Amino acid sequence: MNTLVYLNGQFMPKAKAFISPDDRGFCFADGVYEVIKYYKGKAFGFCDHLIRLKQSLAGAKIRFTGINKLEELCNELIRLNKMGNEYAGVYLQFTRGVYQRMHRFPDETVKPTVYINTYLLAPFIQEIKYGIKVILREDIRWHRCDIKSIMLLPNVLMYEEAVKQGAGECFFIRDGYITESTHSNIFAVKKDIIYTHPDSNHVLPGITKKAVLRICKRIGIVVKEDPVRADEANQYDEFFISGTGSEVMPVIQLENMFVKDGKPGPVTRRIQHEFFRATYGEIADDWDFKDWIG
Amino acid sequence: MNTLVYLNGQFMPKAKAFISPDDRGFCFADGVYEVIKYYKGKAFGFCDHLIRLKQSLAGAKIRFTGINKLEELCNELIRLNKMGNEYAGVYLQFTRGVYQRMHRFPDETVKPTVYINTYLLAPFIQEIKYGIKVILREDIRWHRCDIKSIMLLPNVLMYEEAVKQGAGECFFIRDGYITESTHSNIFAVKKDIIYTHPDSNHVLPGITKKAVLRICKRIGIVVKEDPVRADEANQYDEFFISGTGSEVMPVIQLENMFVKDGKPGPVTRRIQHEFFRATYGEIADDWDFKDWIG
Repeated sequence: MNTLVYLNGQFMPKAKAFISPDDRGFCFADGVYEVIKYYKGKAFGFCDHLIRLKQSLAGAKIRFTGINKLEELCNELIRLNKMGNEYAGVYLQFTRGVYQRMHRFPDETVKPTVYINTYLLAPFIQEIKYGIKVILREDIRWHRCDIKSIMLLPNVLMYEEAVKQGAGECFFIRDGYITESTHSNIFAVKKDIIYTHPDSNHVLPGITKKAVLRICKRIGIVVKEDPVRADEANQYDEFFISGTGSEVMPVIQLENMFVKDGKPGPVTRRIQHEFFRATYGEIADDWDFKDWIG
Repeated sequence: MNTLVYLNGQFMPKAKAFISPDDRGFCFADGVYEVIKYYKGKAFGFCDHLIRLKQSLAGAKIRFTGINKLEELCNELIRLNKMGNEYAGVYLQFTRGVYQRMHRFPDETVKPTVYINTYLLAPFIQEIKYGIKVILREDIRWHRCDIKSIMLLPNVLMYEEAVKQGAGECFFIRDGYITESTHSNIFAVKKDIIYTHPDSNHVLPGITKKAVLRICKRIGIVVKEDPVRADEANQYDEFFISGTGSEVMPVIQLENMFVKDGKPGPVTRRIQHEFFRATYGEIADDWDFKDWIG
């Protein structure tokens, strides 16, 4: 497929997008990224993503001055790749640029590398509908998970382990508390109250998480931004995750333990209903939300 | 300069070595590396580096079957780049290869990316002779620092901060203990006994550290592999760091506090003497070791 990408000022076929081995993204993980979902040409939460991107760039001390042009670039790339009527992901990566390898920052004349890519990103219907199993592992990541950096080796290792165990995600546990998963935020439900880890240096401030919190406020579900203790996980009625790709996805099994009766619960279903109606419109009606909600 | 590099089976000018934006080293920090110093064509601790590389690859679950050919490739690249009579660094990086971005591993037919580069790496005479200042910062890195992964953003950020403060390194502190620095191991000396953090998941098993330990054993300096408490740092007589680039380098100032009288101490000097005589031969005599030792 001849997908076009954007690299440092130019649109080009991906096969012609060359990164230098001296790119600090390649040898130092010296970069940050965002993934934005486009629903038939319409970006979800573009502004929220930009705000977070600015925070990540600031956290990584990468100077990038073209923030205001990104929306136009992303829209243009979606158009060029004829994804305006599709569900698509737009991947944006920014690194500290190309310079002979040394730990310290290159001088300020070195421009950041800017890379944008698009790909088809359909909803994970089966997982959304029936929920997923997750595994639980120690959170061995660094202590600035609020920066959306490309330092994803632990996420990669743990997600691979999850898949090998027949699971769809891995919950991370830090100091006894469930933080987040390899690429999604986590919510737990007990007696109709939702619990989620507060924004901190140990979790990414998720854009879909933010959307879920807005939905809860609107439809009157109480949310407590308190972390859940891993050893008390069996006391919760429901779990679900949120993310740009996973959207709002029920979790029905933690390791070998089913959550309640092993079916997506009513609070999760209500939030899914709101989220999917808002993002997919009437198409979501065909997914039998009413049946799901019961 | 027309330096040649090695990339996936071929020697080529660095300007023609192209990495795909889908390389997992670029978008996931899904890779490991080594730096080996060549002293006038002779590699220091090649075998030790290979052993560690194998451990890093195993830790990152990257399958690479060409370990046994690496020494020949590195030697050849040194020769091709006419560095056989120089002090040079050989940089080797291995990533999980190129595949459309997804967290889970690509299928097993995807070959790792192998990249090797050489560069001039002279001794840091001034720093070796007079010592450096270091800053101290919280160790925010992940919890598998024993894997020499390319996830170096925190190292980059902290080293840059060190340089801005007029320092030559940054000591990391985890749970109150000094672990290591951004790209070197740490040693402290009290009453002629050397203290260093034991090998663990929080420090890299340094090759030069290993050489220092061998020197100590040979010349009868007692080493205790116990970590040093940051709040007791003022009780130590000497500090020094070791690394492939820094070799054996005195630390004479921690933040605003001088270590003792602010001059490299006798134990550091003895180890430097042994190390530099072994690696640089008679040239090191010109560096006035006797003067240094006093």
